[in-house]
Amino acid sequence: MSAPVPSTEAAFSTVAVVGVGLIGGSIGAAIKRHGVARTVIGVGRNRERLEAARRAGLIDRVGTDGSQVADAELVVVCTPVDRIAADVVALAPHVRGGTVFTDAGSVKQSICTSLRGGLPPGIGFIGSHPLAGSEKAGFEHADADLFVGRVCIVTPDDATPAGVRTRVRHFWERLGMQVAEMSPARHDAVLALTSHLPHAVAAALASLLDGPDTEFAASGFRDTTRIAAGDAELWAAIFCANREPLIEQLDRFELQVSKLRAAIAADDRERVIQLLHAAKQRRERL
Amino acid sequence: MSAPVPSTEAAFSTVAVVGVGLIGGSIGAAIKRHGVARTVIGVGRNRERLEAARRAGLIDRVGTDGSQVADAELVVVCTPVDRIAADVVALAPHVRGGTVFTDAGSVKQSICTSLRGGLPPGIGFIGSHPLAGSEKAGFEHADADLFVGRVCIVTPDDATPAGVRTRVRHFWERLGMQVAEMSPARHDAVLALTSHLPHAVAAALASLLDGPDTEFAASGFRDTTRIAAGDAELWAAIFCANREPLIEQLDRFELQVSKLRAAIAADDRERVIQLLHAAKQRRERL
Repeated sequence: MSAPVPSTEAAFSTVAVVGVGLIGGSIGAAIKRHGVARTVIGVGRNRERLEAARRAGLIDRVGTDGSQVADAELVVVCTPVDRIAADVVALAPHVRGGTVFTDAGSVKQSICTSLRGGLPPGIGFIGSHPLAGSEKAGFEHADADLFVGRVCIVTPDDATPAGVRTRVRHFWERLGMQVAEMSPARHDAVLALTSHLPHAVAAALASLLDGPDTEFAASGFRDTTRIAAGDAELWAAIFCANREPLIEQLDRFELQVSKLRAAIAADDRERVIQLLHAAKQRRERL
Repeated sequence: MSAPVPSTEAAFSTVAVVGVGLIGGSIGAAIKRHGVARTVIGVGRNRERLEAARRAGLIDRVGTDGSQVADAELVVVCTPVDRIAADVVALAPHVRGGTVFTDAGSVKQSICTSLRGGLPPGIGFIGSHPLAGSEKAGFEHADADLFVGRVCIVTPDDATPAGVRTRVRHFWERLGMQVAEMSPARHDAVLALTSHLPHAVAAALASLLDGPDTEFAASGFRDTTRIAAGDAELWAAIFCANREPLIEQLDRFELQVSKLRAAIAADDRERVIQLLHAAKQRRERL
């Protein structure tokens, strides 16, 4: 048994994590690894799963209803994007004044808009999106180092008190992340390109592979489609919650594919080289 | 200095590798690692680069013209796909009767068709495509284990003598590969889907990423576009040499993207789930 983290070092006394899957479980593990809070409460629907996560050392206490979050100073909601706003609203009456809510969802505009002005006085919400994850699901794949060196986007708006902003930034920084701030709308536009579009493209590609050809898929096909193994329901919720920015990026993408297709169909080698070279240069900047 | 490999174990006395880049250099390294030949001759245009590859231990002798391959029993041509057939034709007059040529190109139909019946009597060619590689270029990235456990497709036709087939199969097997045989046309159709399409898709995706958003590209974007860092000229040659099968796959892909786009635009969550789920199942079979 490890010694309790001294309160002088812990940034928070108690943090609640709602939804203890891959992300929620990794947040629990990272809080404990970095001594960010003295107590982590894991909240969810399935007591058996929560107890297993507690035995795995990811959380300290379990709760299946709002009464368990009463003493949390920070509540991190890690449920699917179509449930985050409702979960915050349901838990808000149970917490003390001054408690801050944040989340880990891959879309921000719909969540932030629906929570704006909808919480009891003294209860703050600020959207977060830690850019870290995996195509795997479940707390069994939780990793205390998942966030180290990665970027977390937080999305304050004009109404966000400075203190709320500082505490949430500090929380992610203590997990080892670099924090970037932008508006919810800008977040959704950026992520439509950098995350949601690649997922849609990988899925379209993976779905073309028929059985007998599978053994001839070399590492290129594997890498390009890896993320298509992600959870279908989670991603469908993300796509539908970020519909307009994603459609815009899909249209840009289809235009780019059609340029390449036209150059290949015309056997225009110089044009194909030009298009591939521009792509290579952009890829190498990553 | 390591002891010379006994001739009783080496399958070949002398193998020539034409084009000592990533693939040719790795073949040289793998031949030596597995004791497949007593001598590896590296053939290319740039003597300085060849000498550097020799000093790196990938080849034993260097040659910049056909006279150097006179005593090779097997010649493996690893030049870009648009040069392979011409390189075989240029080298064929310099070798002894019974010498077998093969290659490592990513397309087969155009090469095999242009060489069919075009070689001196007693000189055989059979197409090969080891499914292994990297987005990196140059013998400096050569890896003696690049081929271990991977698949090599060889593409005999009705005119290929059984002995030629056996020797080329045996060569790749000795490098640690599993050999699959199919016709050149079937190879090109399969690889259009499993290799050329993902490359085109990754390039189209990578080319959309603008400067300021680059820092928000998480691992999904990176994986999905990794192969877009490959050499533009090599890939343009492959695309143009496999035009019709690739266009066919691009059309299938665009149809799949448009199905997903339509479901998202219609906010039809169930249909999006269905499409993503089918993709996930196919990906998981890999």
